Amino acid sequence: MTNKIKLSIPLAAEWKDGELYLLDQTLLPLETRIEKQETAEQVWDSIKRLKIRGAPALGIAGAYGLLVAIRPFLNLRGYEFMKELVKQAAYLDSARPTAVNLGWSLRRMRNRAEELRAENTATIYAELEKEAIRIHEEDIDCCHKIGHYGEPLIREGMGVLTHCNAGSLAVSELGTALAPMYTAHNMGKSFRIFADETRPLLQGARLTSWELKQAGLDVTLICDNMAAHFMSRGEIQLVIVGTDRVAANGDVANKIGTLGVAILADYYDIPFYVACPFSTIDLNTATGEAIPIEERDPAEVTSFGSSKVAPDEIKVGNPAFDVTPSSLVKGFITERGIISPPFQQNLLETFGQS
Amino acid sequence: MTNKIKLSIPLAAEWKDGELYLLDQTLLPLETRIEKQETAEQVWDSIKRLKIRGAPALGIAGAYGLLVAIRPFLNLRGYEFMKELVKQAAYLDSARPTAVNLGWSLRRMRNRAEELRAENTATIYAELEKEAIRIHEEDIDCCHKIGHYGEPLIREGMGVLTHCNAGSLAVSELGTALAPMYTAHNMGKSFRIFADETRPLLQGARLTSWELKQAGLDVTLICDNMAAHFMSRGEIQLVIVGTDRVAANGDVANKIGTLGVAILADYYDIPFYVACPFSTIDLNTATGEAIPIEERDPAEVTSFGSSKVAPDEIKVGNPAFDVTPSSLVKGFITERGIISPPFQQNLLETFGQS
Repeated sequence: MTNKIKLSIPLAAEWKDGELYLLDQTLLPLETRIEKQETAEQVWDSIKRLKIRGAPALGIAGAYGLLVAIRPFLNLRGYEFMKELVKQAAYLDSARPTAVNLGWSLRRMRNRAEELRAENTATIYAELEKEAIRIHEEDIDCCHKIGHYGEPLIREGMGVLTHCNAGSLAVSELGTALAPMYTAHNMGKSFRIFADETRPLLQGARLTSWELKQAGLDVTLICDNMAAHFMSRGEIQLVIVGTDRVAANGDVANKIGTLGVAILADYYDIPFYVACPFSTIDLNTATGEAIPIEERDPAEVTSFGSSKVAPDEIKVGNPAFDVTPSSLVKGFITERGIISPPFQQNLLETFGQS
Repeated sequence: MTNKIKLSIPLAAEWKDGELYLLDQTLLPLETRIEKQETAEQVWDSIKRLKIRGAPALGIAGAYGLLVAIRPFLNLRGYEFMKELVKQAAYLDSARPTAVNLGWSLRRMRNRAEELRAENTATIYAELEKEAIRIHEEDIDCCHKIGHYGEPLIREGMGVLTHCNAGSLAVSELGTALAPMYTAHNMGKSFRIFADETRPLLQGARLTSWELKQAGLDVTLICDNMAAHFMSRGEIQLVIVGTDRVAANGDVANKIGTLGVAILADYYDIPFYVACPFSTIDLNTATGEAIPIEERDPAEVTSFGSSKVAPDEIKVGNPAFDVTPSSLVKGFITERGIISPPFQQNLLETFGQS
């Protein structure tokens, strides 16, 4: 579609001259280390240890990772090769069993291989490489479309708040929530971004502020509890966040803290948008109440790196996500345009047939 | 007034057998170290290095600290002794020049000494010791009254949220925001407290959750951005926070993040109360807009103990306080009862003559 925007930041996953390179996100923002993936075990380990994270990015890494994993078996033929491919796909999937996109892309690769089983192994591999690149390009295209449709929301001189990381590092190139910002910046618009640090895991501090700064955008890092202050001072005119899952009625599950931001935006009459690729819309979930909230390890709250910051054996709440009611959402920025209320009807009309 | 509640936690400042003991709060929650203050230099250092903090607690420590500081000069008489006393008071005050209560209590001690200048040095010292104890007891009494008037707001089985630390460690014994909770607990009420961790300096994690747990109350530590989630789940029915300064119209300056909590409480129809001793009401400040907001060191946001958590040279917002408009405040819990709207009128009527 639109002409591609090239960011001057390392990609989360890159396929170059038949090799897979992953950026080790666990070292950010202190170190930028890109690791060539040589074996299935290395790919598995990179996924397991969260060197790569973010739903779409995992899908992309999984598809390319399968190519790395089956390369030692290119001397096998027919049934023997397919048996190895299925085994390697299952192995990679086991690195993060709850990551929907990882399983999805590995299944897609396997299905493509099944279609090609009559071909010789070299042809199958070549076609699978094309399929992996297609998965990647579809994601890039989706991000660019979200950027294209979201960009007009950003006006010259605006302050835009985002929460967590729904950027290049989590998806591909432009990300979802950050795609309208990268697109507006690329068009020469001048505006200011506020990045919530996003406790407890600090994706905003470690990842969002890093990638925006690397790409040359004007970003200011704040603690989560400072958003209201900057809104009250008239410094924020727009909020864009990503999402993990959107229910059929438009309720939004996203990183803990999103609900609070949405309520603050509502209080100050600041439009709150959710960047939302089709893959995150779950029309089978009626409302946000049906979305289970994962409770995570208390140590994420009571420690900070190697520093302990709370008393021993203190009770801790650590929900990973919260649910923002659709009434607080101004619109969904999707690869098919901006969806406005009524969401129940408009989400179904736009995505129900896909 | 009411019978005193004795908490089973170390006091921030204690005067025992003519000696001053300070709890080193910089070591909390990992270590409970109480240090006897032997010299003026040691007291100065304890104040400077934030071993003791919180406006009223600094006033108390300053008054007792002056006793420690003038002890080496008890062999002097008349003018010579007074000269040293004035010098020592100025020296202690210089440890935190912006701490209003420190200057206030040192001035009060000096004025008392002036009144007594015709007496011999031993008598002056004995009377100054009584004055320091009076300053301390007035604060204790104020906290107990706030506890007494605020306690009925807490009902059996409730969830109560607080932000930052306006507890025993910042004031004396019961604190301000925590006084109603200690009082209700002392009466046998069973309820649950949520303590915001309070980024960037984590007073909620390090101090509030520590002192409440030590005193046997049911406290759950959460990240600031989780408050909305627990409110949405119906787990919070009351918010009580402290304040640094209240304007004549009822606008409230308090630790950054308070404004956000007030807006969330408003959204969920949860009453938001501010515990507010007379000393924090500034009838000379018309509205919150006139209250200057201190911007603090970016390193508080970008680092965590020894761990760096954000990119080099990232722009940072780090306001120390925010201003909550009086429209979001349900009432002020004071030592003269709960003040309800209209605040402009009722604050003036209650405190204007003091």
